[in-house]
Amino acid sequence: MSKFLTLYTWTTPNGFKPSICLEELKAAYGTEHIDYKEYAVNIGKDIQKEPWFIKINPNGRIPALTDHKRGDFNVFESAAILLYLAQHYDPEHKFSFDPVADPDNYSESLQWIFFTHGGIGPMMGQAGHFSRAAPEKIEYAINRYVNESKRLYGVLEIRFQQDGGRDYLAGPGKGKYSIADINAFGWVKNYAFLGIDIADYPGIKGWIERIQSREAVVAGLLVPKKD
Amino acid sequence: MSKFLTLYTWTTPNGFKPSICLEELKAAYGTEHIDYKEYAVNIGKDIQKEPWFIKINPNGRIPALTDHKRGDFNVFESAAILLYLAQHYDPEHKFSFDPVADPDNYSESLQWIFFTHGGIGPMMGQAGHFSRAAPEKIEYAINRYVNESKRLYGVLEIRFQQDGGRDYLAGPGKGKYSIADINAFGWVKNYAFLGIDIADYPGIKGWIERIQSREAVVAGLLVPKKD
Repeated sequence: MSKFLTLYTWTTPNGFKPSICLEELKAAYGTEHIDYKEYAVNIGKDIQKEPWFIKINPNGRIPALTDHKRGDFNVFESAAILLYLAQHYDPEHKFSFDPVADPDNYSESLQWIFFTHGGIGPMMGQAGHFSRAAPEKIEYAINRYVNESKRLYGVLEIRFQQDGGRDYLAGPGKGKYSIADINAFGWVKNYAFLGIDIADYPGIKGWIERIQSREAVVAGLLVPKKD
Repeated sequence: MSKFLTLYTWTTPNGFKPSICLEELKAAYGTEHIDYKEYAVNIGKDIQKEPWFIKINPNGRIPALTDHKRGDFNVFESAAILLYLAQHYDPEHKFSFDPVADPDNYSESLQWIFFTHGGIGPMMGQAGHFSRAAPEKIEYAINRYVNESKRLYGVLEIRFQQDGGRDYLAGPGKGKYSIADINAFGWVKNYAFLGIDIADYPGIKGWIERIQSREAVVAGLLVPKKD
């Protein structure tokens, strides 16, 4: 059985994190090293709230991962899945940083991962909710979250402008494409959804173009197939 | 110089994470092994937005840490600080899990750390904003975030009820007190602020009491001293 991982996911910014990471690992190491089955969890039908899924992720959210090669070990929380995949299936640190040999770059990557996980994700999520999904149009809340999203884009832009220009969030010099970027990309590419003008953020614009031109990223964004 | 770390912080749920962790490490290993200076960053005066602080944390938020022993290395994001302290200053894994020797418990601790960092923290933060700080009383937003906070408390409660009752979030058996707990405690103890009745969550109630009875936690909650 080469497809020894099952990814439970849906076509959302958090769902794309592990599918992009898995596609990158497949492309870099080959499918003998790593491969996965996708399981489409239709969040429009609240499948993620069903008891069988709560056993996998007590929080009732996608994505989640089961590693059949390691005793059906379950992982929930998108960023924890990326770190799990890096630890177990990226032995050459092609998309991650070695915690022991390279502790400072490893910590920097964690800092940007948490910045995204606690800031970009939740705040863009709330901005999307109040801009599009909420039954009432509440200007105060829309402004609060769109403005905070713009502030967070500003922090990212400063990062990409550092030291004469960086290509990626973490790593020495211009940086190395890593799970820190994969963790942020699925959210940050959705600027238009919030009416953010990407021309104001040329560093982010280049970073998005750089990432979305990767074959594995294109493949990851097609997961899961919907019937 | 034994106080080779500087913690930039303020008396908030995110600020208490590293101060509690540092006090625990001091108590467990002694101040020859680890000690720190506290730097009070008064967020009421927007000190965290000043240029000197932005150089330490580009996101302009407390807490941040500078390690003078390791080339003045800066760490921002509360949970990244906990993982940094665990990697460099908890060699016996008294408050953490060894990623190499104990990868499954390590991953479980990361899963709960991300659950807190992306869920509990942001959602309780928004609930607090709309309940107390917002200039308008917006019922929809108050209900949205208080209800989501209650849902997240429910997820934690299920965790503490697992396998006949757990004492801590991560670790085998009843669990081991770790940075996963320290990461969540500063937020979760504030249930009364949101009108959450802790009697509905006996597992969480016991966990809070267990943690707040620790001397190092009491000490950490007094950081930073305000003039």
